[in-house]
Amino acid sequence: MPSKMHSCTPTDLPSFADCAAQIMDRADVLAQHSDVPDMLTRTYLTPAHHNAAAQLADWMCAAGMSVRRDAAGNVIGRYEGLTARAPALLTGSHFDTVRNAGKYDGNLGILLPLACVARWHAAGRRFPFAIEIIGFAEEEGVRFKATLLGSRAAAGSFDMAVLDNLDDSGLSMREVMQASGFHPAGLAKAAYDPASVLAFVEMHIEQGPVLLNEELALGVVTAISGATRFMVEAEGLAGHAGTAPMGLRRDAAMAAAEVGLYIEKRCQGIPGLVGTVGQFTVPNGATNVVPGKAVFSIDIRAEQDAVREQAVADVLAEIERIADRRRVQFAVRKTHDAPSVPCAPWLQQQVASAIQHCELPVRHLPSGAGHDAMAMAAITDVAMLFVRCGNGGISHHPDEIMTAEDAALAAQAFTYFAEHFTAHFPTEE
Amino acid sequence: MPSKMHSCTPTDLPSFADCAAQIMDRADVLAQHSDVPDMLTRTYLTPAHHNAAAQLADWMCAAGMSVRRDAAGNVIGRYEGLTARAPALLTGSHFDTVRNAGKYDGNLGILLPLACVARWHAAGRRFPFAIEIIGFAEEEGVRFKATLLGSRAAAGSFDMAVLDNLDDSGLSMREVMQASGFHPAGLAKAAYDPASVLAFVEMHIEQGPVLLNEELALGVVTAISGATRFMVEAEGLAGHAGTAPMGLRRDAAMAAAEVGLYIEKRCQGIPGLVGTVGQFTVPNGATNVVPGKAVFSIDIRAEQDAVREQAVADVLAEIERIADRRRVQFAVRKTHDAPSVPCAPWLQQQVASAIQHCELPVRHLPSGAGHDAMAMAAITDVAMLFVRCGNGGISHHPDEIMTAEDAALAAQAFTYFAEHFTAHFPTEE
Repeated sequence: MPSKMHSCTPTDLPSFADCAAQIMDRADVLAQHSDVPDMLTRTYLTPAHHNAAAQLADWMCAAGMSVRRDAAGNVIGRYEGLTARAPALLTGSHFDTVRNAGKYDGNLGILLPLACVARWHAAGRRFPFAIEIIGFAEEEGVRFKATLLGSRAAAGSFDMAVLDNLDDSGLSMREVMQASGFHPAGLAKAAYDPASVLAFVEMHIEQGPVLLNEELALGVVTAISGATRFMVEAEGLAGHAGTAPMGLRRDAAMAAAEVGLYIEKRCQGIPGLVGTVGQFTVPNGATNVVPGKAVFSIDIRAEQDAVREQAVADVLAEIERIADRRRVQFAVRKTHDAPSVPCAPWLQQQVASAIQHCELPVRHLPSGAGHDAMAMAAITDVAMLFVRCGNGGISHHPDEIMTAEDAALAAQAFTYFAEHFTAHFPTEE
Repeated sequence: MPSKMHSCTPTDLPSFADCAAQIMDRADVLAQHSDVPDMLTRTYLTPAHHNAAAQLADWMCAAGMSVRRDAAGNVIGRYEGLTARAPALLTGSHFDTVRNAGKYDGNLGILLPLACVARWHAAGRRFPFAIEIIGFAEEEGVRFKATLLGSRAAAGSFDMAVLDNLDDSGLSMREVMQASGFHPAGLAKAAYDPASVLAFVEMHIEQGPVLLNEELALGVVTAISGATRFMVEAEGLAGHAGTAPMGLRRDAAMAAAEVGLYIEKRCQGIPGLVGTVGQFTVPNGATNVVPGKAVFSIDIRAEQDAVREQAVADVLAEIERIADRRRVQFAVRKTHDAPSVPCAPWLQQQVASAIQHCELPVRHLPSGAGHDAMAMAAITDVAMLFVRCGNGGISHHPDEIMTAEDAALAAQAFTYFAEHFTAHFPTEE
């Protein structure tokens, strides 16, 4: 592929700007594959999902990769190393999306290394290791209410129980997989042999405003935050909004509001800690009725498990104090609890060097969002490179944007990273 | 009707305990007329509503009253005075209900004076004035989203525009009225001639806990509180619950929570002032999404208009401060604004005397809820007698309760009130 814009390399290789143009174009092309018109929604094993997979496979072939699909539907392109059957540096991300999604979430982590591999392929360059790009078939959990299906299959931690999960039309995941030619019996074989893997490095749009606000294109992820989630029902006493005196009320909504504001205050100013009340409802609420019930969610995440656990304990203690003071009962149900997944320091260091090579400052930051790297950490050391998210850091939304300039820098950084990659073999430990 | 329990009056009149037993029984009987099984829901001009009206008319006839229905469907029983066409002391309340209602709200204000009239009728006692008991056909506004239909018709303030309001099945109020034999053209004639009316006195269950908490059976209403209502949309910026740092968030739900808690605090401790956030929703809220939008209602009421207006002004000012500090926009839409309706001091005095006659302390309190007396105030002086509401003061709910003992005291008080009623003629002013 000849350089379209300028020729800054001695050979006629595509420039990183060319890579970026391809990445941005392909993100647009891929976003056309949607389950519904007029927005991007691509869920596990729908026709749009199959078409996107086929498109990725075509691009991988064109980049000189051999392509296979595993039993979970992951699309895996392998760029051989200098020797056959060399252990592989893994990269990639997911190509399923949330409903009404942005087009870079997940997809960027496939398209970005693909552009770099195409460039090496054009130059005839190979490494002592293979590079495998995994397009994970499922991460978001939209269709079957179970997340990380692709990376769990690749990591050998696929939970066979979720095969019985149903989609909104009542089809089980098992049925849908079989109808698509993917056989649950093959899932065990989808797991990588850890001995064949050197590391997993995931590139991903930040999905937050940290790099944007600091005017930085790239960042090194320190850890994927642990998360604890609760659904809470506050039960007070319904009353007439005109006749229940303030001092005698047991207002469930105001009790919930107080919990929410406590969480906000408790998490404020502590690096890497976030707390969110994302759902908040007064069931059958009416303007003239003092709420007898309120339902809300709590989501607390932190880079460090101890920080999260202390915040959770403080929130639960505050809920008890509010319950006593307001005579409101809280039914608190824990729905999720996952520890932090640290990125390997030796890999972080190599990612940081690549960013430095781009003449950019090195910013370390945790990932508050979950990613495929969480699952892959079960079989190999992981790292993540974040790319700046525009538009205030909005993601999981069609307004998610990033720039071609940042894509070029990310391609440059990943190129440097791979070209200077030094594996960290267990024997060195 | 002979006394079943004891005979404390020189004649063989029913005792007030007998009156109370009848009131409680009839409340149970009336509650059987419901639009739906297994709960009390009786809305304007449904079959259940017609049956309840017919039952009331029967009971009125049995108490020696002449009965008519006006064009709004109100059921009006007239107990003639010593002379024909004497001006009337009006009493009554509504016999429609909210969804899943209590059985005393409204209905008590019809059944209570009915028992007293029956007692006078049994004794052959008449007054220099007539007594009319109005069973108002509609007050709650459930079916056609317009309240006080019955009392507005009686007061000549019926808004003909609401005839085009539709119920949930798409029928207009006009169609439903005509199909039931009530003709909108007759609504003007439903209005009382103010010259024929001496006063309107409404008896009603308190629908709040004030009398209950002070261990008082009866209370004198000072005024029906004025009310201002708003629907508010808070718009911040949606974000990923894991990746949006606390300090950079524009969380619409927490902004709304702060408004709610301010309202609660602002109204605390000020007699007669109440403020409520009865609706509170994060549309499409998700556990892992920082709310970009929240919708909530505000309802502020006070006995004194100046108190309410100052509270409203303070809340609106606080909303602006919160908007600035949190970078969240609030769209505030006023949906209701009604001044306080005072009860006439001369009537309050006569109600108070009746309560004193029952050897009870006199407690004055505002009514935070709206009542038919609000509409009737347009044509005559009004007063209200509140009866203690059990069960924490809960109303608009099947758990609404009151005791037969309190019904007996209320019957005794109303009897004394009517027997000692002294009209306050305009010429005396």
